[in-house]
Amino acid sequence: MGHGRTLEYPKTPVNRVNRYNQRATYDLEQIHTIINTSTVVHVSFNTPDAANPFPVTLPMVGVAASFEHPSASLGEPLDIYLHGYVSSRLMNLSRNAGGQGAPDSASPPPPAQGLPVTISATLVDGLVLTLTPNTHDVNYRSATVFGYASLVTTLEEKLWAMEQVTNSVVRDRWRHTRVPPDGAEMQSTSILRVKVVGGSGKVRVGGPRDELKDLKRDDIRDTVWTGVIPVWECFGEPVAYKGVVEGDEKANRVSSVPEHVSEFAREMREQNEKYALATVVDTSQD
Amino acid sequence: MGHGRTLEYPKTPVNRVNRYNQRATYDLEQIHTIINTSTVVHVSFNTPDAANPFPVTLPMVGVAASFEHPSASLGEPLDIYLHGYVSSRLMNLSRNAGGQGAPDSASPPPPAQGLPVTISATLVDGLVLTLTPNTHDVNYRSATVFGYASLVTTLEEKLWAMEQVTNSVVRDRWRHTRVPPDGAEMQSTSILRVKVVGGSGKVRVGGPRDELKDLKRDDIRDTVWTGVIPVWECFGEPVAYKGVVEGDEKANRVSSVPEHVSEFAREMREQNEKYALATVVDTSQD
Repeated sequence: MGHGRTLEYPKTPVNRVNRYNQRATYDLEQIHTIINTSTVVHVSFNTPDAANPFPVTLPMVGVAASFEHPSASLGEPLDIYLHGYVSSRLMNLSRNAGGQGAPDSASPPPPAQGLPVTISATLVDGLVLTLTPNTHDVNYRSATVFGYASLVTTLEEKLWAMEQVTNSVVRDRWRHTRVPPDGAEMQSTSILRVKVVGGSGKVRVGGPRDELKDLKRDDIRDTVWTGVIPVWECFGEPVAYKGVVEGDEKANRVSSVPEHVSEFAREMREQNEKYALATVVDTSQD
Repeated sequence: MGHGRTLEYPKTPVNRVNRYNQRATYDLEQIHTIINTSTVVHVSFNTPDAANPFPVTLPMVGVAASFEHPSASLGEPLDIYLHGYVSSRLMNLSRNAGGQGAPDSASPPPPAQGLPVTISATLVDGLVLTLTPNTHDVNYRSATVFGYASLVTTLEEKLWAMEQVTNSVVRDRWRHTRVPPDGAEMQSTSILRVKVVGGSGKVRVGGPRDELKDLKRDDIRDTVWTGVIPVWECFGEPVAYKGVVEGDEKANRVSSVPEHVSEFAREMREQNEKYALATVVDTSQD
């Protein structure tokens, strides 16, 4: 905080966080970190079907990264790469929106630049228990970015993005597997690149914040427990695949869990617990 | 599974799960359970601003329940109640959409029945590590429901819904706090009722599913570890609020953690771990 220059997404009517401004963040590093820490993000978009007023929301695996500037840090402008399947609705819409879409003279859109999508990720860090229901709260980190999704078309960027996506789920996994994907695999997999145009985040940390009217009543203070139940995503001990039946031909043959897997699970477990416990006593927003 | 009659959401172009049908579910009980198990859900909706093509997505606390039929089980039709603040954008849009909205003669909508919203929740249960990146997968439970959001206007339903929402975050918490909310609190809090018109879910369980081309290659089988890293939401030991500084006037005064809090945290911790570990060896979809 306050160390050097940090980049922020511009505040616009689209991304402005109206409630609890003290929890809002527009900091690129913080927003990108929340997205890359989440195993799954939610991707929302509208279908061209005018009779359907509901956005479609899909859980997907995604990662913030830059193909043009692979060494970019999380605090720099990044694209979001999403992994999907050639046949999926989102991929088809992005293909249609990415190139020579039919011009819409009724309400001239910006030049066809991809399908508008909203990507959201939320990590729950704790349940905040206070004197009265209205002051109960949740410690959490949430990020939303807006952008235009297009299919990645060059083999080089697609292969690079597949590696980024794989390693965003399990650190350093790519090079410990059978790579590169063969021709059929490259064809059956689609990668979406979302050019981000804005974003925002919300973060809540700390303990209960009760109101004076309750804090000064002994009858309430002496009977209602206040505190935090810390919550974190726990990564358990890796379980080798034993196959469906005894002696299964498909079972894992490597005798011990490799370090890139065991270390990753252990570090995630420790790091997530540590963060959740730290938010309980964080006083930066009190 | 297969015990008696279960209700399902109808399959329509809006909610049809196209990829991996073996993972799709339209079962009300399963979908409502996923939503009520998630501490936070993502709520997506469109703004009336024609220049903004991006759905807005907000993390919110929500619960599936029925005010008209309070004893309804999770397998029966339910509304989704969302907790919010009077001033928020979602609440304002729902207020405007709920009643006498201006008729739109260009594309006649159904009678104004609330703001169209999409509610999504995803729980990650494990990371599935296979022989090659393309077969890597995630064990998860995901639910999406579509419906029309309106503000709850009667005091009776609002109070009831506030209790449901509170107890959906921490079981049985409501009656252990200072209730009922006073007049100012009732006014500053809004509750949205979403009349659900459809929904679907996706569930992935089990171990790695590799392809024959890799399974028959000894060089790959002997070097690439396959298995699952189980993942679950861990609820830690409740931490009493000590206040920001020593001797803080605001600190918790109840000497031991009450049973409704400690038991809840313990049960959630055990139950979530148990579910994640069970999905590793679940063979129902193999």
